[in-house]
Amino acid sequence: MALNLDVVGRKTDPIPFRYTWRDAVLYALGVGAKADRELDFLYDGRGPRVLPTFAVVPCFQSLVQITLNLGANLAMVVHGEQKTILHRPLPSEATLTTVSEAIAVYDKGPGKGAVVVVEAKTVDERGAPVFDNVFSVFLRGAGGFGGARGPEAPRSEIPSERAPDFEITETTTPEQALLYRLSGDYNPLHADPGFARLGGFDRPILHGLCTFGFAGRHVIKAFSKNDPRYFKSIKVRFSDSVFPGETLITEMWKESDTKIVFRCKVKERDKVVISNAAIELYKE
Amino acid sequence: MALNLDVVGRKTDPIPFRYTWRDAVLYALGVGAKADRELDFLYDGRGPRVLPTFAVVPCFQSLVQITLNLGANLAMVVHGEQKTILHRPLPSEATLTTVSEAIAVYDKGPGKGAVVVVEAKTVDERGAPVFDNVFSVFLRGAGGFGGARGPEAPRSEIPSERAPDFEITETTTPEQALLYRLSGDYNPLHADPGFARLGGFDRPILHGLCTFGFAGRHVIKAFSKNDPRYFKSIKVRFSDSVFPGETLITEMWKESDTKIVFRCKVKERDKVVISNAAIELYKE
Repeated sequence: MALNLDVVGRKTDPIPFRYTWRDAVLYALGVGAKADRELDFLYDGRGPRVLPTFAVVPCFQSLVQITLNLGANLAMVVHGEQKTILHRPLPSEATLTTVSEAIAVYDKGPGKGAVVVVEAKTVDERGAPVFDNVFSVFLRGAGGFGGARGPEAPRSEIPSERAPDFEITETTTPEQALLYRLSGDYNPLHADPGFARLGGFDRPILHGLCTFGFAGRHVIKAFSKNDPRYFKSIKVRFSDSVFPGETLITEMWKESDTKIVFRCKVKERDKVVISNAAIELYKE
Repeated sequence: MALNLDVVGRKTDPIPFRYTWRDAVLYALGVGAKADRELDFLYDGRGPRVLPTFAVVPCFQSLVQITLNLGANLAMVVHGEQKTILHRPLPSEATLTTVSEAIAVYDKGPGKGAVVVVEAKTVDERGAPVFDNVFSVFLRGAGGFGGARGPEAPRSEIPSERAPDFEITETTTPEQALLYRLSGDYNPLHADPGFARLGGFDRPILHGLCTFGFAGRHVIKAFSKNDPRYFKSIKVRFSDSVFPGETLITEMWKESDTKIVFRCKVKERDKVVISNAAIELYKE
């Protein structure tokens, strides 16, 4: 199926998204926040604090809209890269508005994939920027349309010479994707065994952005005392799929007071699933 | 604090409740439904089917309203008994309306509790009955106002002479109450360690109605092939608290083709937490 490349360079209409503490808590549970040490993210009586990676949720519908307008096959869509920049901490409730634009569709060659890069800018009720996202979505099998190949993946910044400064291991539940998807990514690839098989997977896969949420949570747990106010940005590259129920290991290296480099592995298969990843923090 | 007994015998205004598949799935996850054998309750692509015990959700606000109008202290409220009768299977989305009434407040004596009995009748858009609930809520420490003592607890119907015909064991997660409460019971008793201590508990307790949902699910898994269409009614008595993270054992006895008697125990403490419980099924 040919992609509809007319989509590139057109901005979406502004898409409003209202959320309350309930959505923030549902998201935190979806990315595995724990009652014992992260109650601030899970209970309205404590705010709640909002996980910085929740910033992918209010703008997600604009990504869906662009992906569908491109004519992509949802069974073949996987997340490629993600960058999220917060301009200030997320309030526990808000009405935000997002305008998105597909800024490029790259062609990784015939029989290979295409990559659509979507920039989403999200503002509050007064029009003030709250966060920006860059989604890179990999459309498996959609390459070969004669487009530009696009930039190569950035080199990993992980220091080869030393062990991680910090490591957190957590097991996802078999229901993790079914819970995470209630935050707005309803692609059946993450729920339906038959649909997942159509996409070439043995069973439904975890959302890349769910793994992303686990990893982001691990970094702020390890380096900013669970305080999301110090969170400035996160970027990751999704290098392999995760199946619900698998165990994630986030390995973290402190590059400086304001930069943490990390990667995620699946313990059971010893596979790196998030690489080329870093979080920037504001100075305390 | 004296209870405001004027509440008794007054019907609430009709309270509407709109739900979609997302609420039904959130509830199913809240009561522990599993991806491998209960996907029909967890995925919109399969309907979803709606767990019969979800019937306590659309009318829950009316119970909260009556409990607050009574002047009850939320830290001291625990569920006493519950009966739910379904007139037909729950659709995967609907707008339902509930009228509730406190039909009695019983006095278990000075220094002991009071019991408020609330009948809730829920109808669909056309006014046709969908389900009825009778909530009995125990208000610890609120007894001694000189009211009637009310009926004694019914005798257990569990056959003493034989082992259960079926048994299901499942472990709740430490986050179970934090997830379940997103279905509408926001009492901090189930989330806030400090508030739970005010109520005399070492830590937040699981909602009685969450345990109720686990048990109902176990019975339809064991006896009606996960098919909620055969479900007619459920009644339970909550005899002890459950802490999130504990393991529930539901022991079930088949009394007839249409009646299952059951109880629930907490494995770790060998405590019966639901007793005097039965589910009626329609004949296949």
